[in-house]
Amino acid sequence: MKARVAISYREGVLDPEAVAIERSLRGLGFDTVTGVRRTKLLELDLAETDRAAAEARVREMCDKLLANPVIESYRVEIS
Amino acid sequence: MKARVAISYREGVLDPEAVAIERSLRGLGFDTVTGVRRTKLLELDLAETDRAAAEARVREMCDKLLANPVIESYRVEIS
Repeated sequence: MKARVAISYREGVLDPEAVAIERSLRGLGFDTVTGVRRTKLLELDLAETDRAAAEARVREMCDKLLANPVIESYRVEIS
Repeated sequence: MKARVAISYREGVLDPEAVAIERSLRGLGFDTVTGVRRTKLLELDLAETDRAAAEARVREMCDKLLANPVIESYRVEIS
């Protein structure tokens, strides 16, 4: 099975890379940019064959390694 | 308007962060993971009101700053 995990900063948490991108774009003359948000998308190949088991496993991966729950939230999709 | 830009490594280019994630997951006992791919997703808020103009502008941003054409490819969606 495949899992897609989207990890993004929680509302209100400053993402320094997004700020740097926005600033650099304006510096290059792209002054119509009024906001930048960044999400990390991970696509995992899994040996699991059961959808619910795969989702539970991926949520465990997020909690243990992939996301920092203090500042990030994540969404999991299994296909 | 909003633009979504998905930037990923070209086929055949090694992504060191994806390799590190896969290795760490296995190290934590998640041994059903057989592959990891990573995509950077940027959501841009734009002052443009014309769809085609916005897309052209975002492609220019990708070529000039957001993506490294040697190793990365990108997709742009305007909404």
